[in-house]
Amino acid sequence: MTTTVPLRPREDTALPARLARSAAERGAGAQMRTDEFAGWLARRAEAHRFSVERIPFDRLRGWSFEEGTGNLVHDSGRFFTVEGLHAEVDEGPVRQWRQPIIKQPEVGILGIVAKEFDGVLHFLMQAKMEPGNRNLLQLSPTVQATRSNYTGVHRGSPVKYIDHFVSPGRGRVLADVLQSEHGSWFFRKSNRNMLVEAAGDVPVDPDFCWLTLGQIGELLRRDNVVNMDARTVLACAPAGRDGRGALHSDTELLSWFTAERSRHEVRAERVPLDRVDGWRRDEWAIRHEAGRYFEVVAVSVEAGNREVTGWTQPLFEPVGLGVTAFLTRRIGGVPHVLVHARVEGGFLDTVELGPTVQYTPDNYAHLAGADRPAFLDRVLRARPESVLYEAVHSEEGGRFLNAESRYLVVSDDDGDEGGAVTGAGDGTAPPPGYRWVSVDQLNALVRHGHYVNVQARTLLACFNTGAVEL
Amino acid sequence: MTTTVPLRPREDTALPARLARSAAERGAGAQMRTDEFAGWLARRAEAHRFSVERIPFDRLRGWSFEEGTGNLVHDSGRFFTVEGLHAEVDEGPVRQWRQPIIKQPEVGILGIVAKEFDGVLHFLMQAKMEPGNRNLLQLSPTVQATRSNYTGVHRGSPVKYIDHFVSPGRGRVLADVLQSEHGSWFFRKSNRNMLVEAAGDVPVDPDFCWLTLGQIGELLRRDNVVNMDARTVLACAPAGRDGRGALHSDTELLSWFTAERSRHEVRAERVPLDRVDGWRRDEWAIRHEAGRYFEVVAVSVEAGNREVTGWTQPLFEPVGLGVTAFLTRRIGGVPHVLVHARVEGGFLDTVELGPTVQYTPDNYAHLAGADRPAFLDRVLRARPESVLYEAVHSEEGGRFLNAESRYLVVSDDDGDEGGAVTGAGDGTAPPPGYRWVSVDQLNALVRHGHYVNVQARTLLACFNTGAVEL
Repeated sequence: MTTTVPLRPREDTALPARLARSAAERGAGAQMRTDEFAGWLARRAEAHRFSVERIPFDRLRGWSFEEGTGNLVHDSGRFFTVEGLHAEVDEGPVRQWRQPIIKQPEVGILGIVAKEFDGVLHFLMQAKMEPGNRNLLQLSPTVQATRSNYTGVHRGSPVKYIDHFVSPGRGRVLADVLQSEHGSWFFRKSNRNMLVEAAGDVPVDPDFCWLTLGQIGELLRRDNVVNMDARTVLACAPAGRDGRGALHSDTELLSWFTAERSRHEVRAERVPLDRVDGWRRDEWAIRHEAGRYFEVVAVSVEAGNREVTGWTQPLFEPVGLGVTAFLTRRIGGVPHVLVHARVEGGFLDTVELGPTVQYTPDNYAHLAGADRPAFLDRVLRARPESVLYEAVHSEEGGRFLNAESRYLVVSDDDGDEGGAVTGAGDGTAPPPGYRWVSVDQLNALVRHGHYVNVQARTLLACFNTGAVEL
Repeated sequence: MTTTVPLRPREDTALPARLARSAAERGAGAQMRTDEFAGWLARRAEAHRFSVERIPFDRLRGWSFEEGTGNLVHDSGRFFTVEGLHAEVDEGPVRQWRQPIIKQPEVGILGIVAKEFDGVLHFLMQAKMEPGNRNLLQLSPTVQATRSNYTGVHRGSPVKYIDHFVSPGRGRVLADVLQSEHGSWFFRKSNRNMLVEAAGDVPVDPDFCWLTLGQIGELLRRDNVVNMDARTVLACAPAGRDGRGALHSDTELLSWFTAERSRHEVRAERVPLDRVDGWRRDEWAIRHEAGRYFEVVAVSVEAGNREVTGWTQPLFEPVGLGVTAFLTRRIGGVPHVLVHARVEGGFLDTVELGPTVQYTPDNYAHLAGADRPAFLDRVLRARPESVLYEAVHSEEGGRFLNAESRYLVVSDDDGDEGGAVTGAGDGTAPPPGYRWVSVDQLNALVRHGHYVNVQARTLLACFNTGAVEL
């Protein structure tokens, strides 16, 4: 007997067009005009009392340096710990190093609820305070919660809208994938990135608002408005079109990626934080002895709209402003970006695809010549008319303090021709580890975890929302 | 300026039909009739002198138990090591355990060269001796080499045909993906699975032969002929069709998988081998004190057609014969299998999709009732006419001694209807962790690593080669 349950199509072929329709709505959505947003956000900031204060480590409550390891841990054993990492890699100017790293084994949920109004998909975004953001309040996903948050280890109030993501049958899943976060600061962390189209009415809490993809794209053109968690979820929106060709077929692209992953030997082992040579701890911070990379610091937070009203916690504070950029070209009329297969010590699996340039200048100011990152100068010296996109964004404000990068998309259409693209062997091909990939292919890869790193996903969110037109 | 390089189609849409054409050729190929194969293999066995002898650990040459850890290591620091694993999981009858485990950080290549003869794709297979195979000689991929093999750490002869896989431009890649191996015996091991269609003539060495997919499918119906490495590569052949529907859309399937990965907390840490409680080492073996699971043993090998002519090495010898089975149904006319999201301590990332049943009866004979594996009894008590496929295959003979499983595909079309398939909530839905997935969907997932485990891939190879018709 054959089962007669009706089959479903494997793919929702109407979805990319619905997302494109939402991305085209830039000036106004069902709830507000885009030019009303700044006022709305300012009112949300006024509605709550926030303050963040740097404190010495001995004023942390519930956190302490563990006997024997020096790891910075919470009494509950939950949240996260700051431990040490010893990494060895097989190429590049620095072959082995030790550093502090955040270990957070819990998988959190970053989820955005979507809903159609007047035939256009809108996304429920939240004005959320995070202590590490310079401006504190940014636009975040509907839900941004560690398991500790929504299972109540925080002893705070319930996480709003969490049911859309943890209870089946509350809507239709548009995307759901475990994605890595910063491999330089986290040890093998990943979060669940979800987009769920709600069935039925969704009451809107005062800190929340419905925006179209195009409205979010407009906000992505402003500095420090859309937070990292929102960006990574929007990157996972299935906006890509499958019908268009690319410079390399999908199988060729996957084969190149597999070769990149295979050719690197990365050894990354956790070590006790007090065994991290080259770093020094005082009352206020753990710092690299040359003043590079980042510091581990502590803050005290007072807030009115978080799950709990006040707490203290450690944060990582990077040194200097990062530069994160894609070079882009139209190849055969189809937009491509130059990805870089990057080794980061905290990745679960050796390499992921990052932007063409991902770089904190101050970290590498002591390196010169061939050790300077490829393509950095091409980005920094781009003619103004080649800069298609530029904005400063913050990394996750729940773990990082003032961690800002200048994100750019730079047209390389006036770069060298032919060989640079095809790798025809005339010496101008992309160097090993770099590849031209169509934006549609990047959208296909991001359905799966551990292909596209979090910085590249910020720029992919800019493509998906129309913040930059390629 | 827009680059004018011609684009390629993202997908080779002709390939599934070419693979199906090859799978349809079951009786004869360009080089031999299928009924001639046994004679050919026997002649290859006669052409070489092989012997494998169990030896005590102190007769291992180049291997020793390391001071301080008790780990079993090679003097060169290469190949693999036998270390300890401490695993903690959050469900199931056994929540934490220690065991010996193989650590082999090198990524090897498992590669098959393909070539068309008379319009039909053929695959270059090798008669290869592996010390752990009961019958020693089995059919393996064209290339089956660790990096130590092909970079010469073995100081043996060069690996034949390796250029097809490590030198670009020697052909066209049909599949190239890093796949996990046994998560119960290896710590986070993966190998590169490659199918490459050769350009130009390919000279055939005496130990090699061209076979169609259908011929290999016929051989997969026999016990212990096609080795594990060949099976996993054949599983990666892009044989799936995208146009057909499935019980769950691809996004629903990925969402379920993401939820399975997120809901498990698995802690797996390497520990020194001499700290593995519950296991005892004597002159000849490391054994579990209750006689369960497997033993670590040593062998001496004499061989004529390997990269080196004689060596000694450790092997894992499982206790008992495994049972590995897919339940299968046609749903809406499309073949589906019931996958199980399995936690294995050595997986890189918590869970992968395994067969419905993957089980070594002797390991769990002490468990009863609800702790007995789901669906085991349905497989063991299946009516003969429901057993669509049954054969005994060996796991990797380079690491495992007499590691045999009975692989089955059992029709569940006469199982309970409706709710069992749809999960309609009438109590007969698949239990948590199980899902009906179309074979085409499994083929789509296996383009990426860490979705489909090595046992499920053996059964997928049986589907791809027509060893079983669904």
